[in-house]
Amino acid sequence: MTESPSAGNGLLNRRRLLQMGSAVGVGAILSPVAAEEPWLRRPGAPSSDYGQPSHRAHLVRERVNAHPFGPAAGSSSTPLQSLNGTITPNSLHFERHHSGIPDIDPARHTLTIFGMVDRPLTFNYEALLRYPMQSRILFLECSGNSYQNTFPAAADMTAGELNGLISCAEWTGVPLHYLLEETGIQPASKWVIAEGADASSNNRSVPLSLATEEAMVAIYQNGEPLRGAQGYPMRLLVPGCEGNLSIKWLRSLKLMDQPAHTREETSKYTDLMADGIAQQFSLRMEVKSIITTPSGKMKLQEKGVYEISGLAWSGNGEIRTVEVSADGGNSWAEAEIQSGTGRLQPVRFRIPWRWNGQPATLQSRAIDTAGNTQPTREQALKGQSPLVAYHYNGIQSWQVEHTGRITNVYA
Amino acid sequence: MTESPSAGNGLLNRRRLLQMGSAVGVGAILSPVAAEEPWLRRPGAPSSDYGQPSHRAHLVRERVNAHPFGPAAGSSSTPLQSLNGTITPNSLHFERHHSGIPDIDPARHTLTIFGMVDRPLTFNYEALLRYPMQSRILFLECSGNSYQNTFPAAADMTAGELNGLISCAEWTGVPLHYLLEETGIQPASKWVIAEGADASSNNRSVPLSLATEEAMVAIYQNGEPLRGAQGYPMRLLVPGCEGNLSIKWLRSLKLMDQPAHTREETSKYTDLMADGIAQQFSLRMEVKSIITTPSGKMKLQEKGVYEISGLAWSGNGEIRTVEVSADGGNSWAEAEIQSGTGRLQPVRFRIPWRWNGQPATLQSRAIDTAGNTQPTREQALKGQSPLVAYHYNGIQSWQVEHTGRITNVYA
Repeated sequence: MTESPSAGNGLLNRRRLLQMGSAVGVGAILSPVAAEEPWLRRPGAPSSDYGQPSHRAHLVRERVNAHPFGPAAGSSSTPLQSLNGTITPNSLHFERHHSGIPDIDPARHTLTIFGMVDRPLTFNYEALLRYPMQSRILFLECSGNSYQNTFPAAADMTAGELNGLISCAEWTGVPLHYLLEETGIQPASKWVIAEGADASSNNRSVPLSLATEEAMVAIYQNGEPLRGAQGYPMRLLVPGCEGNLSIKWLRSLKLMDQPAHTREETSKYTDLMADGIAQQFSLRMEVKSIITTPSGKMKLQEKGVYEISGLAWSGNGEIRTVEVSADGGNSWAEAEIQSGTGRLQPVRFRIPWRWNGQPATLQSRAIDTAGNTQPTREQALKGQSPLVAYHYNGIQSWQVEHTGRITNVYA
Repeated sequence: MTESPSAGNGLLNRRRLLQMGSAVGVGAILSPVAAEEPWLRRPGAPSSDYGQPSHRAHLVRERVNAHPFGPAAGSSSTPLQSLNGTITPNSLHFERHHSGIPDIDPARHTLTIFGMVDRPLTFNYEALLRYPMQSRILFLECSGNSYQNTFPAAADMTAGELNGLISCAEWTGVPLHYLLEETGIQPASKWVIAEGADASSNNRSVPLSLATEEAMVAIYQNGEPLRGAQGYPMRLLVPGCEGNLSIKWLRSLKLMDQPAHTREETSKYTDLMADGIAQQFSLRMEVKSIITTPSGKMKLQEKGVYEISGLAWSGNGEIRTVEVSADGGNSWAEAEIQSGTGRLQPVRFRIPWRWNGQPATLQSRAIDTAGNTQPTREQALKGQSPLVAYHYNGIQSWQVEHTGRITNVYA
């Protein structure tokens, strides 16, 4: 059986490839290594209370930034190029803090629901633990993710440096509507103003429909209690929407008949259009995908078969299809979605590719179940002010040089 | 609307409960906390390279044991009672080492497939990264899990101390059959002897059918490269089977026409029956469930509604149903499976329960898609030698005293 192409410049058919003997063929005919390595001769380290990654894996977040106005306001990005699968380990989940990570004592923290409700109520941590919970695997993306790709020149960065303000976790918490039903929602109520217990009292206005449909008060992330950096002891989680809406260290929810127009929804997180009008409350994150391997600043060592793989997600439902191109968009092949799927759950896509040693431009584009197709960079920027840096979801292009070096390009 | 019971001694109907206003009713009518806490007044800590849990969450593994023959041979257990959802964070995945955690340089580590193959091959780490991969959420359970419950007297322990040799992760790796197809499998080959690169050269015989069906060479766990404690840079993963089969730090696979009868499959990990015969190669982990909250050594503070929740899994397929009893097995109600499902994927089950302040015996029993029902303790031990401590999957019973204190009992 011979290799079966699925699109131009070396994209292969995964199913056919895997039916072949000598499928990838990078195993070498060698004798086993002699038992001389130190780890084969001496006992290793014992078990531990709380484990850590291998020091050899060099796992750190990207772009750990401090804001010029104060070191506690900053962010960090997930090193997407070092990861595989869909789950982001909690230690590598992206961060964005407006006044640092507060060290909150859960015994002294409460969540109060007030405003246009029949019966204002306060919940402490122990009380919330008794409520019916749900667990969902969800993506969380900062609306500023990939903003460097809106700049005039393409930055030479890794996948994580460019696009790492997206992470994914199994979140467990109390569906917010249970709590709102206990307080009673007055008919005129249309917005919920969520506020955090950090020193910035970071706050956002959430449409009531989002608050009652899918929002939860998250208490666990990937099994364990929330990290401090992710809102310990509790955070709001509004699935599918820009991360800033999911207020960390959640201390109050005020029901109102209008939005509060807080600083974070006026000075930031709006979309400035070319005509000078800013679009506010564009909250859903649109369909998007990123090839994470091979990707920026990597170097292919030799010709041959590689797996192209990446993440895709949409705030408007599930991912239906991911297509991959190796020739800058002249031809496309459908990748295999090789992970679980579900509403607002990111997927891992995979497709094999034979690199012939010549230049190639690798791209992916995702299509969601609502029928949206990820736009090109040009389409994504159309009509927007050149100053805008939010909600960018254009196709990411990686240029493979004949040397094997890979760079970010605008293709 | 009034509460709707689903079984005796306070088990409620989750769907009905959640349709009610004032569903759980542990929110208090209080004014918001004054803004005097230190975390509301001063900026917190900045972003970090690699995050850690809140020191207030007190997250540590249970029973971090060193073997009497050497500190590097030991184990540790997942603190199930502190977790929720289905994913176990890598730092809290259970451990079992036979000669400690080797510190392996991936550039000097290889995997060799030899024996009854057409073409022996050696794969290094970089080569394996180029192969088509798969990602699956799977449980991994030590065959010695819950062995304390085979003892004559019930130990007063937490859920994790008793049952925490079960963990769950999204594993990503290369399906083993791709590699075996490259080497070619000779017709007489029936077993694969897997060996690790730790100082004990820990090894096991895996039936060829298991090796070619679902086994993978795992490289990533919950997104990040394997931890040292879990086999960095690569491990065998045989889904649904006893953990010991999933050889960590995998360095060789030898194909043979018979099992090797290694120390770990003769002196250990066999089932000694009452008639003196030991059953060998009973590899699949049977259907099982554990209530993780409320659970051993917890204390309910007051009467009222609580969520009963736990984990269920089976090495023979998917979990179809989980039933919960609050009256020691006199009556059972079906719990909601409140997480993703899939082959060999553990599920999180949930059901609300109103504690009336009187003694209660909480139990769960799982039923898998192969039709197996989790046995009672008595059924599980039937026919086995009293010395046996492997593959125990009897129903776990938690006794709630009138004080609210919860203990492990044999009910």
